[in-house]
Amino acid sequence: MDRDHAAALFANDAFYNAFATGDLAAMEDVWAKAHPVSCIHPNDGIILDRAAIMDSWRQILENGGLDIHCAEAEARVRDGFAVVTCFELLGDGCLAATNLFVKEGSSWKMAHHQAGPSATRPAPKDRQGPAVQ
Amino acid sequence: MDRDHAAALFANDAFYNAFATGDLAAMEDVWAKAHPVSCIHPNDGIILDRAAIMDSWRQILENGGLDIHCAEAEARVRDGFAVVTCFELLGDGCLAATNLFVKEGSSWKMAHHQAGPSATRPAPKDRQGPAVQ
Repeated sequence: MDRDHAAALFANDAFYNAFATGDLAAMEDVWAKAHPVSCIHPNDGIILDRAAIMDSWRQILENGGLDIHCAEAEARVRDGFAVVTCFELLGDGCLAATNLFVKEGSSWKMAHHQAGPSATRPAPKDRQGPAVQ
Repeated sequence: MDRDHAAALFANDAFYNAFATGDLAAMEDVWAKAHPVSCIHPNDGIILDRAAIMDSWRQILENGGLDIHCAEAEARVRDGFAVVTCFELLGDGCLAATNLFVKEGSSWKMAHHQAGPSATRPAPKDRQGPAVQ
């Protein structure tokens, strides 16, 4: 795994860390500042504005972090952007997610996120991420 | 709107044209060949292999095109890639979609697609695409 590939997966982990711990400042830091950003939460329309995306996370995390685990994260890295796909295990539910990262300086920052329900679940052994025991 | 922006929206229209007409050859042409591709159909896991993605479209379109309309397509174009978000009006249902395009030669080709259910619907006036009357 080359450095960019590992760094894209690290940025993906940082997103789920912020999500699981309810750390809004960390969530704010995950998202791109120089690039346009967009976000599609499950069953909840399309958000195309950074301030509105941050408001949505404020609402999602207002009672603290969620019991969320990332699994089977796969990164495809190209010049200047990386597509990470993964499952999100959220309580008893399972979502499939798209996380698009762009290079800002030397860091990968989130430019787009979509998550939606998935009937297919990863095997338990494939659980990854900060909240896994 | 600059040329790349218009071309990305044109590529997005070509995707929904192939979807609406059930044209598998056109769907095959929409997807990138040199770049790795991935696809997340609604409620149906993550596909990371081009042949498997094409098999999935073969199954979806085996009885012909679907009554699908694209609405509120928005393109964000960067060097070498474009993120298009839109709603998919599918019969009485509504999905929100991520369509990621990459430059292959002079053409924008689809590198990633995700669609998932959306409770938010666009206004009827915002309907776009080939199947709109």
